[in-house]
Amino acid sequence: MTTLIFGGQVVSPQGAAPADVLIDGEIVTAVLAPGAADALDVQADRRIDATGKYVLPGGIDVHTHMDMPFGGTFSVDDFETGTRAAAWGGTTTIVDFAVQKKGGSLQEAVDTWHAKAEGRASIDYGFHAILADVNETSLKEMDVLVDQGVSSFKLFMAYPGVFLSTDDQIIQAMFRAADNGATIMMHAENGAAIDQIVSRAVADGHTEPKYHGLTRPIALEAEAVNRATQMADVTGAPLYFVHLSSGDAVDVVAKARDEGRNVFGETCPQYLFLDESDLARPDFEGAKYVCTPALRPVEEQAKLWRGIRTNDLSVVATDHCPFCFTPDKQLGRDDFRAIPNGLPGVEHRMDLLHMGVTKGEISLARWVEIAAATPARMFGMYPKKGVIAPGSDADIVIYDPAATQIVSAQTHHMNVDYSVYEGWEFTGKVETVLSRGEVILENEHFSGALGRGKFIKRDLSQYLV
Amino acid sequence: MTTLIFGGQVVSPQGAAPADVLIDGEIVTAVLAPGAADALDVQADRRIDATGKYVLPGGIDVHTHMDMPFGGTFSVDDFETGTRAAAWGGTTTIVDFAVQKKGGSLQEAVDTWHAKAEGRASIDYGFHAILADVNETSLKEMDVLVDQGVSSFKLFMAYPGVFLSTDDQIIQAMFRAADNGATIMMHAENGAAIDQIVSRAVADGHTEPKYHGLTRPIALEAEAVNRATQMADVTGAPLYFVHLSSGDAVDVVAKARDEGRNVFGETCPQYLFLDESDLARPDFEGAKYVCTPALRPVEEQAKLWRGIRTNDLSVVATDHCPFCFTPDKQLGRDDFRAIPNGLPGVEHRMDLLHMGVTKGEISLARWVEIAAATPARMFGMYPKKGVIAPGSDADIVIYDPAATQIVSAQTHHMNVDYSVYEGWEFTGKVETVLSRGEVILENEHFSGALGRGKFIKRDLSQYLV
Amino acid sequence: MTTLIFGGQVVSPQGAAPADVLIDGEIVTAVLAPGAADALDVQADRRIDATGKYVLPGGIDVHTHMDMPFGGTFSVDDFETGTRAAAWGGTTTIVDFAVQKKGGSLQEAVDTWHAKAEGRASIDYGFHAILADVNETSLKEMDVLVDQGVSSFKLFMAYPGVFLSTDDQIIQAMFRAADNGATIMMHAENGAAIDQIVSRAVADGHTEPKYHGLTRPIALEAEAVNRATQMADVTGAPLYFVHLSSGDAVDVVAKARDEGRNVFGETCPQYLFLDESDLARPDFEGAKYVCTPALRPVEEQAKLWRGIRTNDLSVVATDHCPFCFTPDKQLGRDDFRAIPNGLPGVEHRMDLLHMGVTKGEISLARWVEIAAATPARMFGMYPKKGVIAPGSDADIVIYDPAATQIVSAQTHHMNVDYSVYEGWEFTGKVETVLSRGEVILENEHFSGALGRGKFIKRDLSQYLV
Amino acid sequence: MTTLIFGGQVVSPQGAAPADVLIDGEIVTAVLAPGAADALDVQADRRIDATGKYVLPGGIDVHTHMDMPFGGTFSVDDFETGTRAAAWGGTTTIVDFAVQKKGGSLQEAVDTWHAKAEGRASIDYGFHAILADVNETSLKEMDVLVDQGVSSFKLFMAYPGVFLSTDDQIIQAMFRAADNGATIMMHAENGAAIDQIVSRAVADGHTEPKYHGLTRPIALEAEAVNRATQMADVTGAPLYFVHLSSGDAVDVVAKARDEGRNVFGETCPQYLFLDESDLARPDFEGAKYVCTPALRPVEEQAKLWRGIRTNDLSVVATDHCPFCFTPDKQLGRDDFRAIPNGLPGVEHRMDLLHMGVTKGEISLARWVEIAAATPARMFGMYPKKGVIAPGSDADIVIYDPAATQIVSAQTHHMNVDYSVYEGWEFTGKVETVLSRGEVILENEHFSGALGRGKFIKRDLSQYLV
Repeated sequence: MTTLIFGGQVVSPQGAAPADVLIDGEIVTAVLAPGAADALDVQADRRIDATGKYVLPGGIDVHTHMDMPFGGTFSVDDFETGTRAAAWGGTTTIVDFAVQKKGGSLQEAVDTWHAKAEGRASIDYGFHAILADVNETSLKEMDVLVDQGVSSFKLFMAYPGVFLSTDDQIIQAMFRAADNGATIMMHAENGAAIDQIVSRAVADGHTEPKYHGLTRPIALEAEAVNRATQMADVTGAPLYFVHLSSGDAVDVVAKARDEGRNVFGETCPQYLFLDESDLARPDFEGAKYVCTPALRPVEEQAKLWRGIRTNDLSVVATDHCPFCFTPDKQLGRDDFRAIPNGLPGVEHRMDLLHMGVTKGEISLARWVEIAAATPARMFGMYPKKGVIAPGSDADIVIYDPAATQIVSAQTHHMNVDYSVYEGWEFTGKVETVLSRGEVILENEHFSGALGRGKFIKRDLSQYLV
Repeated sequence: MTTLIFGGQVVSPQGAAPADVLIDGEIVTAVLAPGAADALDVQADRRIDATGKYVLPGGIDVHTHMDMPFGGTFSVDDFETGTRAAAWGGTTTIVDFAVQKKGGSLQEAVDTWHAKAEGRASIDYGFHAILADVNETSLKEMDVLVDQGVSSFKLFMAYPGVFLSTDDQIIQAMFRAADNGATIMMHAENGAAIDQIVSRAVADGHTEPKYHGLTRPIALEAEAVNRATQMADVTGAPLYFVHLSSGDAVDVVAKARDEGRNVFGETCPQYLFLDESDLARPDFEGAKYVCTPALRPVEEQAKLWRGIRTNDLSVVATDHCPFCFTPDKQLGRDDFRAIPNGLPGVEHRMDLLHMGVTKGEISLARWVEIAAATPARMFGMYPKKGVIAPGSDADIVIYDPAATQIVSAQTHHMNVDYSVYEGWEFTGKVETVLSRGEVILENEHFSGALGRGKFIKRDLSQYLV
Repeated sequence: MTTLIFGGQVVSPQGAAPADVLIDGEIVTAVLAPGAADALDVQADRRIDATGKYVLPGGIDVHTHMDMPFGGTFSVDDFETGTRAAAWGGTTTIVDFAVQKKGGSLQEAVDTWHAKAEGRASIDYGFHAILADVNETSLKEMDVLVDQGVSSFKLFMAYPGVFLSTDDQIIQAMFRAADNGATIMMHAENGAAIDQIVSRAVADGHTEPKYHGLTRPIALEAEAVNRATQMADVTGAPLYFVHLSSGDAVDVVAKARDEGRNVFGETCPQYLFLDESDLARPDFEGAKYVCTPALRPVEEQAKLWRGIRTNDLSVVATDHCPFCFTPDKQLGRDDFRAIPNGLPGVEHRMDLLHMGVTKGEISLARWVEIAAATPARMFGMYPKKGVIAPGSDADIVIYDPAATQIVSAQTHHMNVDYSVYEGWEFTGKVETVLSRGEVILENEHFSGALGRGKFIKRDLSQYLV
Repeated sequence: MTTLIFGGQVVSPQGAAPADVLIDGEIVTAVLAPGAADALDVQADRRIDATGKYVLPGGIDVHTHMDMPFGGTFSVDDFETGTRAAAWGGTTTIVDFAVQKKGGSLQEAVDTWHAKAEGRASIDYGFHAILADVNETSLKEMDVLVDQGVSSFKLFMAYPGVFLSTDDQIIQAMFRAADNGATIMMHAENGAAIDQIVSRAVADGHTEPKYHGLTRPIALEAEAVNRATQMADVTGAPLYFVHLSSGDAVDVVAKARDEGRNVFGETCPQYLFLDESDLARPDFEGAKYVCTPALRPVEEQAKLWRGIRTNDLSVVATDHCPFCFTPDKQLGRDDFRAIPNGLPGVEHRMDLLHMGVTKGEISLARWVEIAAATPARMFGMYPKKGVIAPGSDADIVIYDPAATQIVSAQTHHMNVDYSVYEGWEFTGKVETVLSRGEVILENEHFSGALGRGKFIKRDLSQYLV
């Protein structure tokens, strides 16, 4: 089966240019100048007219938490609803986090995640592994997982007693990564110190959601970024910071990058579009906005956009980790510490970043770079994913930059009872989505079969010289 | 006439991948996955086997001085010999500097350069204009030249009494550039201060070539970079520093770039591969290495390579400005101040940067980026130039990474009687060169017709958000 | 004649402590613990009770312009009125600027200033020389003046065509200073660039006083500070920046100081207490606030106070350069460029800085340090001046921290028809002033004889290791 | 009993000047200009001729470990031998560390130290407390100790399982200090990470003393300095870093200080005069040089001297913690981890810093500042200690700058069988020492009575605005 997408503007990190795309089966086989398909007398089984539209490599969201156990419950999107919602939003690949249990093995975690995803995912997916228990066994398992295509490992400097790795654990994992080439992903906040500030606030009777933000100072995010950067420098491990939320944190990354180190930063749409005032919404609505790091003062947004432009932030992912307002978020009604941390977001990333384009924050090329090309290269999936090029998987989104849409929990496809963007109007909308050559979304109809998504065995990061 | 280049690795800033390239006339019409050409039954008039070779977008050297008047003589390559040598070295586009005369007009300068190039260039070329006399007239002419496709203007903070623009002139030109979108190119050295240091050295009897280097402190390059950056910030003008030679200078650029400013840096192969010890060669051989900024202490080289990796240096160009050892360089036998400033280099840039690849300083992708893609985007020629993509000019180099060559003035193609790389062995060699679809170099034979090169009407820089 | 000042708190840069001060003639001969004078049976001719008061080393204002020619007129305080006003404000030493004329000699300038001061000054004074015409002759004269006790030379990077020295001149003066040990003082603003901005503003019809501020960007102050710092680094000259007005400028100084360079900063009370909104006062009142650098946005004040605390600003001087509102300032009614630049201030420095103490910006010790001790050491007058210690000149101020006063042009002692602090209430007031052992101000009565002040032959800066 | 020291140069942080010092009992009662004593007919019971000598405030060593339990043994100087050795070296005050036991109370620690010192010390002494067990009880005890004059508390980011406080403990102690005004002292090295590096080295068979240095990267000192600085910023606690050993660490302090924070740095003579090559001495001699942080590459020395000049390092103390080569250091013959950490040094600090004066690294004034005046102000003892001024304790050293001495374990007064400066020749020597007015060392004879030293109840740091 061959498909020809014609008449559109193909967008890559190098810019946008009119071109046609020929697909044979699951693979792009040619990119052609306008007119060339006719000159070559290309006969395609299917022809898709993309006139006036952008033809994008499918979005890659490298930070999702589907079906994640949390305090007796689970994040409310599983691989079925989560990948479907992703596809609706123009994302054709996710990389989800397989969570090691304390006392459990990494392999077990990855096996569990395979079980969660297989037969349910409608787009392709990979796994990072969360190292919740760094010990001799799990360190050895890192090598094994790299061979299995799980080539990135997340550690936490936050959440003492739950996920937090101490510095001795972190540096051991980094030494291992330096040896096997894996990327260390880091949640960078000094959780031990923050928890003390939190306790003081609660002791003072400050239990509303807004104190979630007020007790997590930016200085302690920047501190952790610096600490991890220094340990990475000592060990030689590649280091990727998830969900950076403040200008000070970005500055530390920028300095390391100026020095030529393999240090990378990610931010999330919520830090670009929402702010700490949302945490102070009345009627416990602030709880909807509780994620970690917390939403920041509004002036941080401009610093993050700047970081995206300077490439000190290389990737925008969602940290999609949805919990319903009722009952989940209600757990923290009397104490913000009990509010499940996380926001729904996998569906809106491409659109929100396109709004960055229309607002003049980033170029079209940079949009595709931070949302598809760099995530692919960063996590060893390029050029199979992340680009429209001969030989690449035909994961393609046809995007209408002129269409508009109103966001609402009533209409979104994530399995969650609220939206942090409720009522917002977006300019730009996904029109058609192909995953490995198959049209899975078209004419407002999703046709991706349950389980058609495949596991991606990833290589090492391709950003390291 | 159609051409198919098959079997090679097409290299772009995103990486290297096996692909075939179909050319129709002057234009690339398709990039195809291996096998796709057969599947589509592509019939090409000519087939070039690139198996085992890199298929590169032709190199773009945005800093050359062909046929440039200097102290009663001229740089010894004109557009005939200079563009031919460039092609031998895998460069298919140059941007040369049209030099305004004191009291003369900018238009006159550009007209003169058109006359120099037309009928002689064998590859495509564009022009920057050197603003040697910033005044009300020349400021107005900037707008006109932008419309003519000369969209970048060089100023000098060095060479008092010759090219130096004072800060009042610089800021005026910058205000104009901020209005018309042109890029200000800057030779950043505090020439007024340096000339005093030079005078003191000469007064002390220090007249040998090595004093050319010892009298131009790095601090006064970094100073000028900072000064221009601050004026660019005040005015809003895009700013591109030519031939940065020191880590301190790069640090100033890095800081500005971290702040998200439109500030860019270029370096040259001579600063990456040669050093100040060359200026101290006996028998006046040091004179061969006299260029400005001067060659630096060897430890600066690593800082410049790092700057290339961090993208604080975005472009590598040659500042090709050849003078013969005899008679030209001899002018300064008794006083280094009289040595014509400049080195030959247009022929060796691609090879030297490939050595950066083999030495592990940069990746294949970065090689193509700094040598072709970024120069094209920086100076408004992309995607016509700088990339192998459907619709782009078929300026293509087939490069053999395994071949070796020995550099010598005996065998090089530049019109100059010495080589600063005499006797060096390079790994990697240009095999075939196409310019707008025409094979102009093949089997060690150059066949580019005199005057076949065309003027490129350039747009504004494409790096500004 | 002996004097004993007893019962007060003697303040030094090391803190405040109860002590008595014994003076014999012009000199402090002993500092005694409370009670020690009685134990030693000290018999003083005069006893001054300082109970509840601070006993301070007399203030030293190292930046005044008395009787300075300016555009056909003169600054309106001469050495009689100016030094008297200084004394009323607790300042017992000034260092004034002897201004070289274009084409004139430095010696002539200093001789002229001696003539202005002799027979008129009622407190001691020294001279800096302004190098308005750097040439071979004036460079040689620098050595001579150093021997005469004029050991600091001011250059301007502002005021093209009037005072501006070009970089070649600056570096020559710096080389000379590096040889003879003199301190280079710098007015750091890129005047060449600023004048273009000014011209653009005036061409746009912006002629009101507030445009004086809007046309002098902070970036061009910071630029000049960096430029001078780099040249000082190349030459080895000690460098002192006068009247720094912005946080960015201080940051450049801070960086140089972190690197251990002999670079120092001064600011003035007007930058600590006034701001650019004063320039926008209606009815041309803004003209009263025209000085250069211009008053800055109010947020710069906190940065300057911080700089004082961190010692990146080492000295607070006044840049006292008074012109009457009528007729002088009226010259610029139609064009802010014609407003004489300068504010009256010599009388209020000690009080304003004491307000810094009461507001918690600085400590008592730091007050005395920036206003007396450091100026003395910086300009080679320590320990003769700047400290209350055995052997030092008995220049002593008894200061009542609890008294209050209302500032007004009606009551101040400067010869100018307005006050930039009109109506302000100060807490703290000078009670008694001794100059070289002689009480010259007491009980609101000034008794310093015309001409009793002596020229101070200064040594080199004492801050250089 | 009155004493007059006449004819010498009294040195203070403001410089050196000829002056006589009159002492009545334990207190300085007057500082007099030369000749004034005669003019006042001062009759002293004792007259000390200091002609040609420096008259210094007695040295203050704020970092000693006398009689400290360590791994079953004790540091080999107790308060008798240690304070005597200090006095021989011109130090008249020490502040020693009272060590809390795990599970023990702070009060107990201080009581124990009182018992160690009372009846044995021959010079005055104060205590810091080491918080080895931060818990609710010890946090409350901090307030009590502040009232007892123990106003500074040391925490360790190194030595996991022994002294290391985790970040939650550190931030709690800092919050407490912010409330009660105490100074947090920090041993800043990331011990958790370092211990992993150490384990890897030992696992690789690297057990010689030099691996003590090779396993403690500078990056992990700078990291800890940054971490503590950020927590101090969040809490508002004053922060003092003990024994900084590297330029990178100083840079972090410098940045914080540029920002106006209450952050201070100390270094020690061993980091200024010794280097990591000493750790590689043959025959296990390297063990003599094992201290923590480890001796660094020799190029760090210049950075530390620079930090002293820029005041980013405010104090030089010794970290005197002596162990004998035999048997103590022999414990680590087979494994550097078992070598007791610490060097003898209390006797040589003043002399070594005087060598800094003679080498041109620091001025006379700065010598006294870092060795006496600043330590006194930093730890709340000024002006009782640290200065020669009316009302101050008569702790005075008469120092002969021209005398020479050869250092040797044979002749030094510390109770330890080796010297890290064995055979070095010092220029400069302590001649006479007075402690609270009593001559305790004179004519090479020590006469300070056992137990004559008194506990100093210290105030809060006097450096905080």
